[in-house]
Amino acid sequence: MTDTFQFKLLATDGKARRGEVSMPRGTIRTPAFMPVGTVGTVKAMYLDQVRELGADIILGNTYHLMLRPGAERVARLGGLHELIRWPFPILTDSGGFQVMSLSGLRKLDEQGVTFKSHIDGALHHMSPERSIEIQGLLDSDIQMQLDECVALPASPKEIERAMEMSLRWAERCKAAFGDQPGKAMFGIVQGGDIPHLRVRSAEALSGLGLKGYAIGGLAVGEPQEVMLDMIDTTIPHLPTEKPRYLMGVGTPDDMLKSVARGIDMFDCVMPTRSGRHGLAFTRRGRINLRNARHAEDMRPLDEESTCPAARDYSRAYLHHLVRANESLGGMLLTWNNLSYYQDLMAGIRKAIEEGRFADFMAETQEMWARGDLAPL
Amino acid sequence: MTDTFQFKLLATDGKARRGEVSMPRGTIRTPAFMPVGTVGTVKAMYLDQVRELGADIILGNTYHLMLRPGAERVARLGGLHELIRWPFPILTDSGGFQVMSLSGLRKLDEQGVTFKSHIDGALHHMSPERSIEIQGLLDSDIQMQLDECVALPASPKEIERAMEMSLRWAERCKAAFGDQPGKAMFGIVQGGDIPHLRVRSAEALSGLGLKGYAIGGLAVGEPQEVMLDMIDTTIPHLPTEKPRYLMGVGTPDDMLKSVARGIDMFDCVMPTRSGRHGLAFTRRGRINLRNARHAEDMRPLDEESTCPAARDYSRAYLHHLVRANESLGGMLLTWNNLSYYQDLMAGIRKAIEEGRFADFMAETQEMWARGDLAPL
Repeated sequence: MTDTFQFKLLATDGKARRGEVSMPRGTIRTPAFMPVGTVGTVKAMYLDQVRELGADIILGNTYHLMLRPGAERVARLGGLHELIRWPFPILTDSGGFQVMSLSGLRKLDEQGVTFKSHIDGALHHMSPERSIEIQGLLDSDIQMQLDECVALPASPKEIERAMEMSLRWAERCKAAFGDQPGKAMFGIVQGGDIPHLRVRSAEALSGLGLKGYAIGGLAVGEPQEVMLDMIDTTIPHLPTEKPRYLMGVGTPDDMLKSVARGIDMFDCVMPTRSGRHGLAFTRRGRINLRNARHAEDMRPLDEESTCPAARDYSRAYLHHLVRANESLGGMLLTWNNLSYYQDLMAGIRKAIEEGRFADFMAETQEMWARGDLAPL
Repeated sequence: MTDTFQFKLLATDGKARRGEVSMPRGTIRTPAFMPVGTVGTVKAMYLDQVRELGADIILGNTYHLMLRPGAERVARLGGLHELIRWPFPILTDSGGFQVMSLSGLRKLDEQGVTFKSHIDGALHHMSPERSIEIQGLLDSDIQMQLDECVALPASPKEIERAMEMSLRWAERCKAAFGDQPGKAMFGIVQGGDIPHLRVRSAEALSGLGLKGYAIGGLAVGEPQEVMLDMIDTTIPHLPTEKPRYLMGVGTPDDMLKSVARGIDMFDCVMPTRSGRHGLAFTRRGRINLRNARHAEDMRPLDEESTCPAARDYSRAYLHHLVRANESLGGMLLTWNNLSYYQDLMAGIRKAIEEGRFADFMAETQEMWARGDLAPL
């Protein structure tokens, strides 16, 4: 029987790939950007809007969802898709990253991690098996292995230890996930900034024959060059016929350069979080709406955008809303930013199909470098 | 020349009135509820949504807008309608109420009030003339006189002093407003809970021949009965052919009972503020979404509503969003609440037209009393 979870490579242009990840709930056009729906909501957006912008898939955070509303509760309510009204694909992370970054009192060993909820201080234990169980209760379409993501800089010894344990956890997650046609469990390449550890991780994971592979532990503060080097080091050791997901990345420039290296999927809180803090991503680069230069500028962010937030609202109004901490400011800038991110991915996909990705990348970067409209 | 600002009485049913306030920017169907757009935004809503729910007019707060973005700035940007993208009528309050309730260091005398901004501590002075000037800079369609609203309980002497000064300020505001066809300046009846002071205020204001009359200083903590008594006391002393606006009111029940007494216009932060705090107004009364009974209830707030927020989202999801302090919770509940308020006003208007307002009121109150759906 053919698995209803499939990856199809439609076109390549240099190392850049245009593909489709299909599964019963829908097809993800790659390269794809996945908006982050942290705790069952893409913050400050209606999910109908997120869909209309062209998102084929959103991401849910297992750590947040297991604490609230709780995985068993979500399962009783028919799963995450049903609860949040998003019938399309959902990817969930393993929860490991947020356990490390948000929760208190972590005890981590081969068995898994024990941590205190940042909400009520309750103790929780998460093993590789429990992470997969939770993601199953959420009814996630693409599930991620539990891994240990060490903060850089770290000693080579520490990076290696965490990477090797993550490999063992990948095997346990694979066993726990079992055979689920139409769904996938992705492994995560670790190894910090040490090339031979990245190679070892990618090769060992590839040997497991998983349905997709992520590169984790990057975009955690290191220079962009290091991130790109690690991508270049890793990708040759991943199978061509499986999707490649760069976790937690990134800026529009990060995404362009990563697509050029063969990455297919991205997620990042940047467009949503920045939007709530007054920052707009546009064709002409980033625009900080808090800046006084916008206070009496009645021009829109981008008169050529098809997104109402970018095209119909003045910078002066956005500036006012941001300064006054009004929620509509975050609603409009998040909308603009997700629109820009999805438009960028659509442009990337089209350029790869047409064999002009390098030109598209150069033109896009040139527009950013030219910068915003001159002040009035 | 006929003034393009007009009030037309279309039907009456007992003391309840069905009318139209028309002006160049649009027609307000009365009885009308005006959503509060505090500082140039109806919080957590796109104004397109507010319009679609049936709002003919929104309210702007002069105090907030004069501080941020500032009245002169708004004027340079083409006025408030242009800035916020609401081409329909706007009513602005005088700023007096918020000066009393929000700002520090108030010095109030016959000339006006000096106060400190709650944002940056800067000193501002507002006289009756400056209030009208600011409302003109905002390009407000219905402007309110500056008045002094004393907090109840207060001594009769204090209430009378404030009421008499508010009358003198009404005359000064009338002179400052001058002759502006298509726009209006409303006077505000004061007098606290003392009937003969309310009568004195209403009669003196009526003598000024203003285009509309508000009843102020109510719904500030007194029992509903006192408020209704003061409305009954006041209305016979206001002209029939002018619109009557009950400021800052109120609950759906307050509005029904006030319409029954001849009130035409309302504004209140209740549907928007309550929505951000987890409270839903529905046909079946108020529903507190924080309550654990909703945690696994996949039924919508109101399956018969035409508002997506009420009809398409489950109580379980709303409960989750409210508990997790997610902005989408406030967005959806505000949407639901404004929808309910506008639907209620539409129902009221239809009932008056059809001469069955008393029945409509009784049926509506009975539905509220019957309460919410039984828990699952």
